[in-house]
Amino acid sequence: MTPDTTPAELEQALSDAAAAAGPLAASEPAVRADWIRATADALDAAVDDLVPIAMRETSLPEARLRGEVARSSGQLRMFADALAEGSLLEVTIDTADPDAKPVPRPDLRRVLVPLGPVLVFAASNFPFAFSVCGGDTASALAAGCPVIVKAHPGHPELSVRTAEVMIEALRVAGAPAGTLGLVQGYDVGVTALKDPRITAAGFTGSVPAGKALHEIAVTRPEPIPFYGELGSLNPVFVTQAAVDARGNEIATGYVGSFTLGVGQFCTKPGLLFLPAGHGLQDQLIEATDGVAQAPMLNDRIASGFSSGLDRLRKVDGIRVLSDGGATLLGTTVAELLERREAILEECFGPVSIVVEYSSVEELTAAVEAFEGNLTATLHAEEDADADLARALLPKLTERAGRVLWNGWSTGVAVSWAQHHGGPFPSTVGSIHTSVGVTAARRFQRPVTYQNTPDTVLPAVLQNTNPAGIPRRINGTITTAEVPR
Amino acid sequence: MTPDTTPAELEQALSDAAAAAGPLAASEPAVRADWIRATADALDAAVDDLVPIAMRETSLPEARLRGEVARSSGQLRMFADALAEGSLLEVTIDTADPDAKPVPRPDLRRVLVPLGPVLVFAASNFPFAFSVCGGDTASALAAGCPVIVKAHPGHPELSVRTAEVMIEALRVAGAPAGTLGLVQGYDVGVTALKDPRITAAGFTGSVPAGKALHEIAVTRPEPIPFYGELGSLNPVFVTQAAVDARGNEIATGYVGSFTLGVGQFCTKPGLLFLPAGHGLQDQLIEATDGVAQAPMLNDRIASGFSSGLDRLRKVDGIRVLSDGGATLLGTTVAELLERREAILEECFGPVSIVVEYSSVEELTAAVEAFEGNLTATLHAEEDADADLARALLPKLTERAGRVLWNGWSTGVAVSWAQHHGGPFPSTVGSIHTSVGVTAARRFQRPVTYQNTPDTVLPAVLQNTNPAGIPRRINGTITTAEVPR
Repeated sequence: MTPDTTPAELEQALSDAAAAAGPLAASEPAVRADWIRATADALDAAVDDLVPIAMRETSLPEARLRGEVARSSGQLRMFADALAEGSLLEVTIDTADPDAKPVPRPDLRRVLVPLGPVLVFAASNFPFAFSVCGGDTASALAAGCPVIVKAHPGHPELSVRTAEVMIEALRVAGAPAGTLGLVQGYDVGVTALKDPRITAAGFTGSVPAGKALHEIAVTRPEPIPFYGELGSLNPVFVTQAAVDARGNEIATGYVGSFTLGVGQFCTKPGLLFLPAGHGLQDQLIEATDGVAQAPMLNDRIASGFSSGLDRLRKVDGIRVLSDGGATLLGTTVAELLERREAILEECFGPVSIVVEYSSVEELTAAVEAFEGNLTATLHAEEDADADLARALLPKLTERAGRVLWNGWSTGVAVSWAQHHGGPFPSTVGSIHTSVGVTAARRFQRPVTYQNTPDTVLPAVLQNTNPAGIPRRINGTITTAEVPR
Repeated sequence: MTPDTTPAELEQALSDAAAAAGPLAASEPAVRADWIRATADALDAAVDDLVPIAMRETSLPEARLRGEVARSSGQLRMFADALAEGSLLEVTIDTADPDAKPVPRPDLRRVLVPLGPVLVFAASNFPFAFSVCGGDTASALAAGCPVIVKAHPGHPELSVRTAEVMIEALRVAGAPAGTLGLVQGYDVGVTALKDPRITAAGFTGSVPAGKALHEIAVTRPEPIPFYGELGSLNPVFVTQAAVDARGNEIATGYVGSFTLGVGQFCTKPGLLFLPAGHGLQDQLIEATDGVAQAPMLNDRIASGFSSGLDRLRKVDGIRVLSDGGATLLGTTVAELLERREAILEECFGPVSIVVEYSSVEELTAAVEAFEGNLTATLHAEEDADADLARALLPKLTERAGRVLWNGWSTGVAVSWAQHHGGPFPSTVGSIHTSVGVTAARRFQRPVTYQNTPDTVLPAVLQNTNPAGIPRRINGTITTAEVPR
């Protein structure tokens, strides 16, 4: 049991982070990118040290955890590369236009600057990728913000050791002291969230915890942005044509996806909508029966799953189809629409619900029954279902941050085009993502310099473009110099 | 006196906006751009009709109001052009990479989609540019969101007539009914803000009103983003070398700027920091004495100014230098640091404070005394002050959204690179702007399509790039087709 951070230690972490903010903001993007790369290299070098601790604390298997370290170090390098490339700064220059109407236009140069110290509430289910060395930390560092991670109590030792590895790498690389800090304890996290030196917060976790912390952040005397990823049902809609073309593959893929990582993914498909008479029931049951019992992340999550499952089982109209290492439930769209609130509540763990629809109208009504989700998936045939797909995709787009075609929502690629977010309640802050290059935008604010001479401007805004980065000059993206 | 919107009328406005959201989201950007241009043309055509109403309701002079109509129609056209150009959609495509480590990467295509109906709280001081036809409306329409404007009670008839002109233009151009609506009444605005059909809100006004509405928006059962521009002091710091080089010009420019529009600009320079012994006092007083008395926007603002001024006058250490059509106050940095809260409170209207500093250390301390502002200005000499400027600019950057060199903060150019925002309390939502092309980003959220075939994707995401817009493909901005 790792003790909570003491008030004196918290004060030290906050003042160190505040002291690091200026030097970090002043650091050249390419230099900061090297600091971030150093943490990635250090993580990879420490994998044999970190993974056994993670296995002990989270019960997750070695191969998964080694993959997660690689994903996390790769994510850090992606942010470093994007930062060095320069687009993250959104440099935008409008040269002076003395003839502009109704008034002359001055020279304006816009750049994104870091907000300041960021508080990251780590998640339980990805002890690397959404924890100390995860996407919130990586994107905030890329933005130029010091980071204080509030460790998840599910893997305290791993959090301490990961922070040590990264902090030492940052120190050796020459980053300011206070660039990264770690605190432990729920109340400590709340105290930090209320501290005026904290300028933004990232969170991945449950709906109740996320809502409570969000309210604290946005009703402080000085409100700050709170980016919370809360929960998601990730529905999957399957057309008749898709069942006809590849029903067996869909059934197998679905069971694999909802039981992956013992169902402990925020992108777990929570419901599969199939046409009545789909003929896949035996296969679905058999595949679910074949899933071995596996330990969950920790006792709290196991007991939450157990009570959530008990609740779901008792909902009228829900039938239990398979109930071993994983649980498969069944119902119909008619039942779901009747008891929407009871059925459409996330149950974190290895359970999912097969829902049968009897008409395209019922399928559409099912889509419309959902609130915000991280993902929504359509399994359809491109030719046979073209009209249906064109009708459903805008409805899925309204309700989800990622829309998948003939795929499975578990597994979130880390790249420029990724979006991991969605309308409330899947996140608070649907206009931002917690995965992918644009996640850094959460921790940046624009500043525009008016008529400011080259000699005192940040290098990225100077006429000659010394860093050679892409800049929007008078409306057009270019790496050229500013025209004189 | 225009009566408040009735509950039945509000319900109609909300349901019309909700009904317009889908068609607007589905509209092609180039088509939507034409709808926006139609409103700009209609505004220009109605200028002779609108300006007399505005003169009567706001007491602002004709030339200023005609300029503001031109600025507003120009702003609408700027958003239309940016929308048609395509960068506003931030299209980002990562093609599938089966060899990606640690896992293969699917095809991912990201685009920004509209949030849905937006509620705009109009401002009093720009009856066009920050009101019915202002930047919040223009940027939300460009994003593809229906807009309901809550009229400012200071110009109710103008609001009704402006809305009529724009709504008729949208109808003739073929935009969905419900694209734009207008409501009146404080309680009506609060009711609308709480309505689940409203997905975001923009606000320009006072700190107390903005904070109250912000709290409603972010603590709703479904929290929504609230972009509030609240208040700003806009300090101006003048070096000794700048006084030596062009003291007279600075004195004249300052008085012109703080008395422009009867001091009723959110970018009014509220404090001018001069070195002790600057020798400009007579000129400053003379210029201020020469400002003619002019009516304020309305009785409520006039009485707020009067009581704010009374309060300021009574603060220890504040001296009255000139007190006619405009008021010039004087103090020192030592006094200001002593009574920071009393002196650093915005007083909306034609008053400003000259503050003398006795050393560079005091100048620096004065800069550090400020919280968030829309603007901060440095008057300095490029050669003589290079080191001082390099030391002060990062501190100004921390505290303001726009940093000016040798200029005046009143007058906000509308362009790609503009930023009109700043750290709290100048705004809630410092990472976004209410002026300039990027203001549209406030009303958009990303959606990523995974492995979705061209035949069902939105046109802007299709392989051949039929709209010819700039897209980031595998990390690089291009207008080319997606490589196969």
